[in-house]
Amino acid sequence: MEAALRVLDDLGLPDLTMRRLAASLDVQPSALYWHFPNKQTLLAELADRIVATRPSAGAAVDGPGEDADWADSVRAEAAALRDALLAYRDGAEVVSSTLALGLGSPDTVDRLARAVARGGFDAETSRRAATALLHFVLGHVSHEQQRLQYDSLGVLAAGDSSPLDEDDPAAAFAFGVDLLVGGLELSRSRR
Amino acid sequence: MEAALRVLDDLGLPDLTMRRLAASLDVQPSALYWHFPNKQTLLAELADRIVATRPSAGAAVDGPGEDADWADSVRAEAAALRDALLAYRDGAEVVSSTLALGLGSPDTVDRLARAVARGGFDAETSRRAATALLHFVLGHVSHEQQRLQYDSLGVLAAGDSSPLDEDDPAAAFAFGVDLLVGGLELSRSRR
Repeated sequence: MEAALRVLDDLGLPDLTMRRLAASLDVQPSALYWHFPNKQTLLAELADRIVATRPSAGAAVDGPGEDADWADSVRAEAAALRDALLAYRDGAEVVSSTLALGLGSPDTVDRLARAVARGGFDAETSRRAATALLHFVLGHVSHEQQRLQYDSLGVLAAGDSSPLDEDDPAAAFAFGVDLLVGGLELSRSRR
Repeated sequence: MEAALRVLDDLGLPDLTMRRLAASLDVQPSALYWHFPNKQTLLAELADRIVATRPSAGAAVDGPGEDADWADSVRAEAAALRDALLAYRDGAEVVSSTLALGLGSPDTVDRLARAVARGGFDAETSRRAATALLHFVLGHVSHEQQRLQYDSLGVLAAGDSSPLDEDDPAAAFAFGVDLLVGGLELSRSRR
């Protein structure tokens, strides 16, 4: 896994192949299959490592109940997830591919859902809101990482006429999370 | 462009190369460069074609002013964008790559921003909200298309233990858009 994270950081996801990984470890590719049945399983393990670098959240409320800080805890979870994804080249793509395969730890979405649930939302609403938050986070960070990548390759459009909000990605990210949290607050006030 | 859309639908974005496109047209790759300076420009043109398949929105309000239907018009724009992306294999990836390159028509984000502005939001807020909506749409649809792709390749995890809301992607998408619109409504009510 450590070698795989190094190959990911050095070459990016498209060049992280079982053959390349085996070469970096000076073993035959077949040796890797003793540890991982296939490349998807390896990517899922990588995704779990990437999201596991999030700092642990504050004390969670067990069971139902409302917590005045729920909105801040959702914002903190979303920001911690963004930081973890940004810490690895193509981190958002590794995690989104893994989720699309139905692999990886449910912890990524569970932690967001628990933060939402602290606002007194039912389990179904918390899970749906966590899913929406996750799609926003992955969409946003994947855009940020693609831009970093294109920038380092020198292929960004001259003059950078991007119509998207790029001046301060962290602020743009927080604005989007605030809208999602605000939508939850509104539905709460209408209950 | 028509040949490129066919190659995209038949083979997917990773296999849409200038060489493959030239072969499908029975010309030398160099002939393509007479029309497109590079592959990025070709992808940007593809992205513009994909989003241009959205039905045109209802009569837009010119200039500032509030419109009671602004929230519905944001929902309609987001849904139309999802439909357009889903209509082409890897549509979300083509459009997100193009946006990350700073290429493509600003129309994609402008139409969302105009719908938000109909709620009486200032230009800056409308643009930031449109950017957040776009990241959510691209994150959501890219997940949907990856799953379709993995499903057709037969590599989805057995039992499909995905922790995400997959039963009804259209409903999950609408739930996320509603949260973002709700966040705008809340900020409006606090003005």
